[in-house]
Amino acid sequence: MSNYFLRTLREDPSDAEVTSHRLLVRAGYIRRQAPGIFAWLPLGLRVKGKIEQIIRDEMETAGAHEVHFPALLPREPYEATGRWEEYGDGIFRLKDRKGGDYLLAPTHEEVFTLLVKDLYSSYKDLPLSIYQIQDKYRDEARPRAGLLRGREFTMKDAYSFDYTDEGLDASYMAQRDAYERIFARLGLEYVIVQADAGAMGGSRSEEFLHPTPVGEDTFVRSAGGYAANVEAFTTLAPPTRTYEKLTPAEVLHTPDTPTIQTLVDLANEKHPRPDGRAWTAADTLKNVVLALKHLDGRREVIVVGLPGDREVDLKRAEVAFAPAEVEQATPEDFLANPGLVKGYIGPWSALGPVLGEDASTGIRYLVDPRVVDGSGWITGANEEGHHVFGLVAGRDFSSDGTVEVADVHDGDPAPDGSGPVELARGMEIGHVFQLGRKYAEALGLKVLDENGKLVTVTMGSYGIGVTRMLAIIAELNNDDKGLIWPESVAPFDVHVVAAGREPVVFEVAEALAASLDGAGFDVLFDDRPKVSPGVKFGDAELIGVPKIVIVGRSAAEGVVEVWDRRTGERAQVPVAEVAGQLDR
Amino acid sequence: MSNYFLRTLREDPSDAEVTSHRLLVRAGYIRRQAPGIFAWLPLGLRVKGKIEQIIRDEMETAGAHEVHFPALLPREPYEATGRWEEYGDGIFRLKDRKGGDYLLAPTHEEVFTLLVKDLYSSYKDLPLSIYQIQDKYRDEARPRAGLLRGREFTMKDAYSFDYTDEGLDASYMAQRDAYERIFARLGLEYVIVQADAGAMGGSRSEEFLHPTPVGEDTFVRSAGGYAANVEAFTTLAPPTRTYEKLTPAEVLHTPDTPTIQTLVDLANEKHPRPDGRAWTAADTLKNVVLALKHLDGRREVIVVGLPGDREVDLKRAEVAFAPAEVEQATPEDFLANPGLVKGYIGPWSALGPVLGEDASTGIRYLVDPRVVDGSGWITGANEEGHHVFGLVAGRDFSSDGTVEVADVHDGDPAPDGSGPVELARGMEIGHVFQLGRKYAEALGLKVLDENGKLVTVTMGSYGIGVTRMLAIIAELNNDDKGLIWPESVAPFDVHVVAAGREPVVFEVAEALAASLDGAGFDVLFDDRPKVSPGVKFGDAELIGVPKIVIVGRSAAEGVVEVWDRRTGERAQVPVAEVAGQLDR
Repeated sequence: MSNYFLRTLREDPSDAEVTSHRLLVRAGYIRRQAPGIFAWLPLGLRVKGKIEQIIRDEMETAGAHEVHFPALLPREPYEATGRWEEYGDGIFRLKDRKGGDYLLAPTHEEVFTLLVKDLYSSYKDLPLSIYQIQDKYRDEARPRAGLLRGREFTMKDAYSFDYTDEGLDASYMAQRDAYERIFARLGLEYVIVQADAGAMGGSRSEEFLHPTPVGEDTFVRSAGGYAANVEAFTTLAPPTRTYEKLTPAEVLHTPDTPTIQTLVDLANEKHPRPDGRAWTAADTLKNVVLALKHLDGRREVIVVGLPGDREVDLKRAEVAFAPAEVEQATPEDFLANPGLVKGYIGPWSALGPVLGEDASTGIRYLVDPRVVDGSGWITGANEEGHHVFGLVAGRDFSSDGTVEVADVHDGDPAPDGSGPVELARGMEIGHVFQLGRKYAEALGLKVLDENGKLVTVTMGSYGIGVTRMLAIIAELNNDDKGLIWPESVAPFDVHVVAAGREPVVFEVAEALAASLDGAGFDVLFDDRPKVSPGVKFGDAELIGVPKIVIVGRSAAEGVVEVWDRRTGERAQVPVAEVAGQLDR
Repeated sequence: MSNYFLRTLREDPSDAEVTSHRLLVRAGYIRRQAPGIFAWLPLGLRVKGKIEQIIRDEMETAGAHEVHFPALLPREPYEATGRWEEYGDGIFRLKDRKGGDYLLAPTHEEVFTLLVKDLYSSYKDLPLSIYQIQDKYRDEARPRAGLLRGREFTMKDAYSFDYTDEGLDASYMAQRDAYERIFARLGLEYVIVQADAGAMGGSRSEEFLHPTPVGEDTFVRSAGGYAANVEAFTTLAPPTRTYEKLTPAEVLHTPDTPTIQTLVDLANEKHPRPDGRAWTAADTLKNVVLALKHLDGRREVIVVGLPGDREVDLKRAEVAFAPAEVEQATPEDFLANPGLVKGYIGPWSALGPVLGEDASTGIRYLVDPRVVDGSGWITGANEEGHHVFGLVAGRDFSSDGTVEVADVHDGDPAPDGSGPVELARGMEIGHVFQLGRKYAEALGLKVLDENGKLVTVTMGSYGIGVTRMLAIIAELNNDDKGLIWPESVAPFDVHVVAAGREPVVFEVAEALAASLDGAGFDVLFDDRPKVSPGVKFGDAELIGVPKIVIVGRSAAEGVVEVWDRRTGERAQVPVAEVAGQLDR
């Protein structure tokens, strides 16, 4: 350590929002260069290399071959699949000196597809899985939390190529199994959740989430084994009901009820339910105005009807309306659509149904899946100060379809019937994905099958965030003194500290460090001559090598102390037995 | 090989200008993605990894610590040192979603300086050498020759930090020695030449050039040990002469002599030399008009006087006038400076000296170092159809200084007196460079010295082109059949070929491949069941693994053939002795 490039810092970095960021900077693993962009110092590079090696091992076991693509890529392939546009502001674009368009690739489906198209032409060449461990770029709107959401980050991305759906299933499972082995070796707890295909296109899609309250992703799971990203959660619709016996709808005066709560209160006071139970927000049909920005630049105002106890979850709405962008309607949108009576919007007025593309407003009307035929609602009457009571879907109004934009609540039923779900938070650490034939079709990747017929290849895409995993491991493995690395990824196996001023301390420590090194241990040796034992111990705790060997007062007697950084246990061990002790 | 991701190609790529590019693409090592931008296939990645490991070993021996910086960096540090502007069109610039300026770093002096400034503060922390192996970007005007001049390329760049000049010398020599060891291990011939500091600022600078006729760099060397890049070559000026006894200059009518040759011919015919020898081009003083584009946008027209047997070497001129850009004067420049009589420009007219900043033209006049006081010349008289003969420097005209822009000729004397130089071509493979205090000053990197006084740190910068070296090794190691890798960087140690259709061939080959693998060899095993031996041999020759083991007809008798790809020697070897044979 007297000449290792390492400085620990006493102060937390001012921009650190999370523990991993704070400790990785303080302990000398990384340094910030720009928002979401970091340099790797020697300690950090060692941990990153160990994670990468574990991934390489398991990719090899899974039969995947390593390649390496540039980060800087031309526009054309991304144009061909529509992603040049779809990424919006989320990618870095640039021009070369000749005015050619380039991007810093956020993911490499297109060029992997083209590579295989270049080289392969027969079903005999398949299946194929190839991968890279490579630095990727995304121009995040809010880079945050250190390495957890960076703008430059390292990923392992793998792609599989098959000519049958069964082949894709097998390739997919090989990667999925490899991921389970990788996370096990890293000691990383994970939940595999169904995920939405999103902008990637394709069919089967699962995310590996590390469950943590600080995660940015919300997922749901049932005791019966269902697990999904909230974006991929689908609503279990109640059964439809017959409406022959239901009473007719009635428009009532409901002054000063611009919100669901005021409406429910007034309803319970002035228009109690015939069955004596109280009205709740779930009995109301809230009609929310959204604006969609389509890829062609068109802005479309739509109305979504959902139970009054639900809010629009914008992340779910993004998925539901992709590739269009979604936002709340603006005052301008209302001005442009005077038929929308703010606070009293409904699919029905005193004159009859109004919303829906074929109706007078010309606005599409979509509903939550719970709005089934025969369900009755209190909803707006499209007239200031009026609502309609007992409005029955299918009888009194219809919609242009259903849409999954309502937020998910604890206790909602899982769509597979496995019981109520609970919400939890997680951090995405991996993603496996059946792309299907979308990219192969867009880029013309076909092979000859057994019958000499050209068939389009079907693909999978499999990503693990290397730098993000490193941060999560740091986030999970620390205490108030510093980091505590798991052995599988620790920058060193053992940290030998010469703790004292006597020459014998340094002699014994140096000999021990050399012998451990010779025995195959990665050794960090704190040989700094003028640093006090207290500072050295503090640094050792901050750096977080799992085993620390203190060579101190008893050095002259040939005894040192082996300190387990995780348990805090310390044991007096004869020098000659240290290697054996560490091996256990 | 039956499931390795590898396809050899029968055809040369249409854009391959050089052998290395052609063979690396055909043999399945790399694939082009855009001009100067390549993807690495498994074979290529293995060779690249081996070169990187050799570099890492030698950097460790040199005491340098590995770090890793992002490619995407903010403008500010490069602005502080002036390089954001100086790089001109040579770098990729981009903006993030907030409009912030970024670049794809072509080299990392600034951020290494800032990193050390961040972490270090005392002379006790120094010396320090840190390095990275990282992908860099330059927006080359003419990316060419495959990996030899790419726009994305891998480099090892190291930086040293010292607080004394002696320390810098030691750090510089440690890197320089490491480079010599690296090139020796790679089997790469090199010449160390003095180089110009160029846009990097600083003092001592040497390039490692691999001498090759296809190199893009020209260098000179003398039998006495002098070697320099042409850009760094300095002219050995002849001694000054006294001019008391020289005859006065004389303006003569020299119609139709717009070129040096027509002038010399006319002079020999109409105005023979008094001493009877013939006039040559070297007796004339050619005055060349150049235009400088300064960083602040100003365009300056200047005149350079040089012996008529020399041309302006624009690469030398670029260095001489850096950071200004240099080009030949345009017709517009002449129109704007009517005092310049094209074809008859001189420092002297019938009325006296004219060029020079203080003279009537207002144009700076610089001369070649050979234009010493007392030297006499035939040169333009600034009057259509007239030249002046016997014009003596120092007596009849003066200049605003000397400048090194004349081309270097075979036989020119080395500046160190070691004899005449010869010109040769080479390819840059490494560069070691004493930056001095330029970056530390611009970015405020100071440390406290032994006396508690703040001193500015002095730095060195040391680069090796990893991907370029790989291409040069390929360029040097091939024949008409394909590549022939040196053992130190070969993608595999041995290529086992099952050559036959009999099951015993495959059984013996597979057992041999497995046992070689077990013995620590990296084995490529051609187990393709339906490929003919001829195609397999062709692929083996193209791929270029140095040792090929052919398992063929004699397999049943336990005998195989060991084929040395380089010498072509083939030997019948009992299976059990193959490993021993390869080890020799």
